Amino acid sequence: MQADRLSATFAALTDPTRRAILARLALGETSVSELAQPFAMSLPAVSKHLKVLERAGLIARGREAQRRPCRLEAIHLKEVADWVDRYRRFWEQSFDRLDDYLRKLQTKEKKHGRKQRKR
Amino acid sequence: MQADRLSATFAALTDPTRRAILARLALGETSVSELAQPFAMSLPAVSKHLKVLERAGLIARGREAQRRPCRLEAIHLKEVADWVDRYRRFWEQSFDRLDDYLRKLQTKEKKHGRKQRKR
Repeated sequence: MQADRLSATFAALTDPTRRAILARLALGETSVSELAQPFAMSLPAVSKHLKVLERAGLIARGREAQRRPCRLEAIHLKEVADWVDRYRRFWEQSFDRLDDYLRKLQTKEKKHGRKQRKR
Repeated sequence: MQADRLSATFAALTDPTRRAILARLALGETSVSELAQPFAMSLPAVSKHLKVLERAGLIARGREAQRRPCRLEAIHLKEVADWVDRYRRFWEQSFDRLDDYLRKLQTKEKKHGRKQRKR
């Protein structure tokens, strides 16, 4: 079940508009029509994205009849963070290797520069 | 472009088998047939998943004609980590609120327990 929950979370995050909606909601809860404004999207299009986010548990909607404000629910994002964190050592290793490479390159260039000045 | 790259990464991660392949590759590089064994999947099915992971830049394939070993490429996972990290304070706040709630509940129960003993 945990795997499916994570799949649903990743699926909800595949769309840049849905990620932008989450970024907007990080600033505070808001109504659907307020949300729609900066996206230049129709209300039904925004509502569709909100439904995907709500089903994935990434947002919650208020119960006020007209406004139904949306707010961010970040708990399932923690699952994403926990999942991706298992791979941290791999990208850190990549950066370490790149650092080593650049350091060697710099040393070579310095030596080369010195040789050139000597000529 | 960054947004599309991130969308492609999230899309590649929506499938639990593809995440399991990454977890296997975290143990070391391996051939496609070795990869297929624990998944009880056909080679073409595994190859399909590998193509998705490769297109998303999450794995790389060796050039050895027969074996073409697969290895993890973690750098785009760092982009996922960076993205999700912006929301960290939200789930930490949720846990803080839960902690507060549980502490209040415990205090109430202790008081209640004391009252009951007095009777």
